[in-house]
Amino acid sequence: MQTKSAMVIFQPSGRRGRVPLGISIVEASRRLGVDIEAPCGEKQVCGKCKIRIEHGSFQKPGIESKYLHAGPWQPGEEKYISPEEMEKGYRMGCVATVEGDLLIFVPEAARAGKQVVSKAPRPLDITLNPAVKQYYVELVPPTLEDPTGNFERLCAALEKQYDLKSLRIDLSVLRSLQDTLAAGDWKVTVTVWMDQEIIHVRPGSGSGNFGLAIDVGTTTVAAYLCDLVSGQVIDTLSMMNPQVKYGEDVVSRISYHMENPDGLKRMSTDLVDGLNSLIDQALSRDYTISSPGGNNGSRPDQVIRFQPEDILDVSIAGNTAMHHILLQLDPEPLGVIPFTPDIHHSLDIKAHRLGLKINPAAHIFILPNEAGFVGGDNVGVILAEEPHRQDPVQLIIDIGTNGELVLGNKDRLICSSCATGPALEGAQIEFGMRAAPGAIERLTIDPVTHDVDYKVIGRDPWRSYSEPQDMKTKGICGSGILDAVAQLFLAGIVNKSGAFGKHQFPKRFRRHPETGIKEFVLAWAEETSIGKNIAITQHDIRQIQLAKASIYTGCKLMMKKLGIDSVDSVKIAGAFGSHIDCTLALVIGMFPDCAIDDIVSVGNAAGDGCRIALLNRDKRLEADWVSRNVEYMELTLEEDFQWQLMEAIQFPHMTDTFDHLAGVVPEHILNE
Amino acid sequence: MQTKSAMVIFQPSGRRGRVPLGISIVEASRRLGVDIEAPCGEKQVCGKCKIRIEHGSFQKPGIESKYLHAGPWQPGEEKYISPEEMEKGYRMGCVATVEGDLLIFVPEAARAGKQVVSKAPRPLDITLNPAVKQYYVELVPPTLEDPTGNFERLCAALEKQYDLKSLRIDLSVLRSLQDTLAAGDWKVTVTVWMDQEIIHVRPGSGSGNFGLAIDVGTTTVAAYLCDLVSGQVIDTLSMMNPQVKYGEDVVSRISYHMENPDGLKRMSTDLVDGLNSLIDQALSRDYTISSPGGNNGSRPDQVIRFQPEDILDVSIAGNTAMHHILLQLDPEPLGVIPFTPDIHHSLDIKAHRLGLKINPAAHIFILPNEAGFVGGDNVGVILAEEPHRQDPVQLIIDIGTNGELVLGNKDRLICSSCATGPALEGAQIEFGMRAAPGAIERLTIDPVTHDVDYKVIGRDPWRSYSEPQDMKTKGICGSGILDAVAQLFLAGIVNKSGAFGKHQFPKRFRRHPETGIKEFVLAWAEETSIGKNIAITQHDIRQIQLAKASIYTGCKLMMKKLGIDSVDSVKIAGAFGSHIDCTLALVIGMFPDCAIDDIVSVGNAAGDGCRIALLNRDKRLEADWVSRNVEYMELTLEEDFQWQLMEAIQFPHMTDTFDHLAGVVPEHILNE
Repeated sequence: MQTKSAMVIFQPSGRRGRVPLGISIVEASRRLGVDIEAPCGEKQVCGKCKIRIEHGSFQKPGIESKYLHAGPWQPGEEKYISPEEMEKGYRMGCVATVEGDLLIFVPEAARAGKQVVSKAPRPLDITLNPAVKQYYVELVPPTLEDPTGNFERLCAALEKQYDLKSLRIDLSVLRSLQDTLAAGDWKVTVTVWMDQEIIHVRPGSGSGNFGLAIDVGTTTVAAYLCDLVSGQVIDTLSMMNPQVKYGEDVVSRISYHMENPDGLKRMSTDLVDGLNSLIDQALSRDYTISSPGGNNGSRPDQVIRFQPEDILDVSIAGNTAMHHILLQLDPEPLGVIPFTPDIHHSLDIKAHRLGLKINPAAHIFILPNEAGFVGGDNVGVILAEEPHRQDPVQLIIDIGTNGELVLGNKDRLICSSCATGPALEGAQIEFGMRAAPGAIERLTIDPVTHDVDYKVIGRDPWRSYSEPQDMKTKGICGSGILDAVAQLFLAGIVNKSGAFGKHQFPKRFRRHPETGIKEFVLAWAEETSIGKNIAITQHDIRQIQLAKASIYTGCKLMMKKLGIDSVDSVKIAGAFGSHIDCTLALVIGMFPDCAIDDIVSVGNAAGDGCRIALLNRDKRLEADWVSRNVEYMELTLEEDFQWQLMEAIQFPHMTDTFDHLAGVVPEHILNE
Repeated sequence: MQTKSAMVIFQPSGRRGRVPLGISIVEASRRLGVDIEAPCGEKQVCGKCKIRIEHGSFQKPGIESKYLHAGPWQPGEEKYISPEEMEKGYRMGCVATVEGDLLIFVPEAARAGKQVVSKAPRPLDITLNPAVKQYYVELVPPTLEDPTGNFERLCAALEKQYDLKSLRIDLSVLRSLQDTLAAGDWKVTVTVWMDQEIIHVRPGSGSGNFGLAIDVGTTTVAAYLCDLVSGQVIDTLSMMNPQVKYGEDVVSRISYHMENPDGLKRMSTDLVDGLNSLIDQALSRDYTISSPGGNNGSRPDQVIRFQPEDILDVSIAGNTAMHHILLQLDPEPLGVIPFTPDIHHSLDIKAHRLGLKINPAAHIFILPNEAGFVGGDNVGVILAEEPHRQDPVQLIIDIGTNGELVLGNKDRLICSSCATGPALEGAQIEFGMRAAPGAIERLTIDPVTHDVDYKVIGRDPWRSYSEPQDMKTKGICGSGILDAVAQLFLAGIVNKSGAFGKHQFPKRFRRHPETGIKEFVLAWAEETSIGKNIAITQHDIRQIQLAKASIYTGCKLMMKKLGIDSVDSVKIAGAFGSHIDCTLALVIGMFPDCAIDDIVSVGNAAGDGCRIALLNRDKRLEADWVSRNVEYMELTLEEDFQWQLMEAIQFPHMTDTFDHLAGVVPEHILNE
């Protein structure tokens, strides 16, 4: 124990390396590139990071050394680790520390998997007017009679042919200008940002003007690679937000920053590295570009491969915390009353300053923030859905890791944030997980037999058409949990208050043998890859009730503020919104009552808005206008908030308002 | 000889280290931080880098190893090294290479000394309107009712109190804004650049708004530390341009770049490092600041010490080559027809991007260039002297390492560059040196006895009032050489054509015992610190004749272009201009004939102009106007150029035009 570091090996990945003594096993896993799930941000409240110590010493295996080298057993671990598991060497990775050499097994349940992100771009009807445009010019070479400098020759040509005036030039472009002019024999294509700055010059008339619209979600990141000449989306790239390993939600990330001196920089750098890996993906692919028009005239189809300098513009939208963490602005005040952000206004930041490996002279446009909890992603939603330009009153519900609500029309627009908690994303749910392969995403319960059928991500046939061992079910994701709760209610297994009824079929309903908590088994152990029954517990149902009550209450309080009883349309945005069954969401009372036909899923509207800002510079001004003209409403400050929330936790009376659900909802529910 | 590197020790400095085999000894000296004079840029044409190999091997001293470890004797070395010196181990540092371990002695004559730079600022009568201004504001802290972001609160206060609108903010300032607001209890002092960007926020009402005006000369760098509230110069800092070790003049530097792949970056970095060391000097000193006014109201006297972030603005002026090398723009085309610069226009570059260790968000204003050979320093001269705003026709001669000429008035202004060569700076002169301690700076020759009296820099009493051994004369600097040539002419020792006359006093006049070249001894060996007579040779006189002819011809051709026979005033700018005896300069025909009273030395006008640009932002626009409206005239393209130059090499007829010199010039010259 004289050494200051120890060797740690993670199985099954086999990643290994020396780490300092005293750090937690989750921290060690980060340093060695092994992702252990830690949705609560090492708060010791989720139990997801349960790992097994195989050997506490490579020389002397044995139960004692397991505790010797991973630190003593801590109070609280027994909450998540049974005596049998303890016997086998299970520990909580956020509690156990590295005190000596360790061989650690990471069970599948604790492995942070690659999420399935479905954020395909919608066709947008927008005027193409990008911030960066390209101009072809032919210069007259300098002579002794006219030895004017290269930059001034270029400016003169751009002014003469395109009426561009008072341009400046990025220093890096100026540095290579001479060589570029020589290479192009004084014929060059110039990229100009906002009619103000020359950010790229390439020899000859070759085209290549591309941009990235990046939607940085708390959980997922989607990037749309766009041709700025045609406006088309060439590719959609996505990844998990690499910051997920520091905590699943915004609050965990802020805590990680507060508890780690370099936490902010590390989270920012991880995100930038992640974005760079997305860019690398784009750079390694062949794309066929076809464009009938654009400001360079018509172009034939061509297969191209990008160079980093071909990416000349980027727009980024994220919630206010993602915004602050990316820019390394202290996010701590976002979590403390009065939740003041550092800045609302949009920013233009040079790519080289953020470390994005695109053209270093390009500017990154950062969408503005509305408030401490409602950021540029919501501005993007508004840019895409344009409630501020229309008469009909829209209610837009963007369900991500956080819920953001917008209500209003051209006369008045209000927004708010509702603490849905991470339950709808699968966190803090006993068998919850992100929308990754193996997650139950669709589920039905027979109201008579109480038999369960379900579908997992990554496998087309439902359970009823499969052999049990082929399902390899791993857990439940957000849409699956919502289905499960609604179906339990529709099948009469849980009542209006969300409690399991007294008279249950004994087959799937039971009390957990140890905890005594009521649960309903969705998948039997033989159908899973985790070796045990996957169930939904009373606690899980409460979590979903809280989340849906939160959204419902937010909508109701906002409607009250505007003095309206109904809305003209409900739009569900976000990837989760695209996957949920709107009827079932209405069944459990997630949204205010409205006709099913008036509910529409608008997909990743935040990403769409980000793309709009990329393709039309006027929309950037509009974004700033929106951010300061949509009124933020802090729900928790409303007088009725607590009362309304309590009310909304129940499942709704079907007969009262949901008469259009007749036929969908069984008789015994309607008559209860 | 199996090793790839060798140990080299330089005496008397004692600097030592391992360097790769095969590099020149001058290069080795650079790498080990020993400055050996190499004014010609290792072109093997100046002989200044003569050093002595003490031991060619630390184990086996001896004459053989001297050549073994420093490479074989090369043809050409005998031109600068006598057989006796060769016997003693002398080599040319630019020719001899490191082929094994070496102990090297650097004689005093070869040591690049610290130059005496006299660039005291003149009082300037300018309107104080700096680009950066400070504003004190008190903010209302955010509340739940008004949780608006920090940046927007700041902007609102600045708009309300000072009518500043549409401000942006540097990312680094935004990052610390929250902490600063907290530290100042929501009372802060904000620094705004050009009414556009917030570049600094400090807690409370403390002041501290300082700027640097930096004149980057080929040989010397002068920096004026200014209080931007009072406009006063607080300190003048100066140094040799660290690039001097790569070559004394612009052409040598350009060659160094062309011959070394990393030469440009190295020269740029060396200059930036040098500027940072000047800034460090300023940071280590105590200054007493007193100001009766300024935009913060009256301030009492206070003793302050700077922090780097207190320096909030910088203006830099240099010739076009210095400009390009600093910014790492390829200077090669500046030396090739048609001498086209990369850019004329002024630039604003963030301090962090140039690597200047001041406030990282500050902008560096780079003065614009007029042409390939006339840069921002000349724009500075024009800003300071304002010929373009006046009726009288001014001729401004800025004599530095290069000569720059401006002629005209408010109706028309032309400029040109004349290749004076480095002779006026003491280079390519047998005993020439820069204006450093030990240099002869003033000199008289008795026309009857031909006895010499002189004064050296760093010692007040002249030779005639001193003991010989107290003089410790080391060489001759520019003003001393000019005096010597004029006095030789006035004493009748050299004739109108610049040749030594046939009938000479044998005491000081002689032929060099080895070369046979005629020379006149100015200081006897016993008066020197270099152990031999210091003389001026026929060759040296020719160099000065070429330099003065160059200036004279330039002036004449420019006057011809403007169609004028005389000018209203002649202004001599530059440090050298401050030191020369204008009467003697007229005697040898350096300037067109004019009344002595109309000749005025204006000191470091380039530095003054740079200071003007620092203190008044409107002058930055004027600088850009000047740079594009002064007409550059390439003298070598003029039809009469060669003929006029040949004519001007002679010393002038005194009787013809210099009648106002009667009484100064002896009878025998006037009547010759």
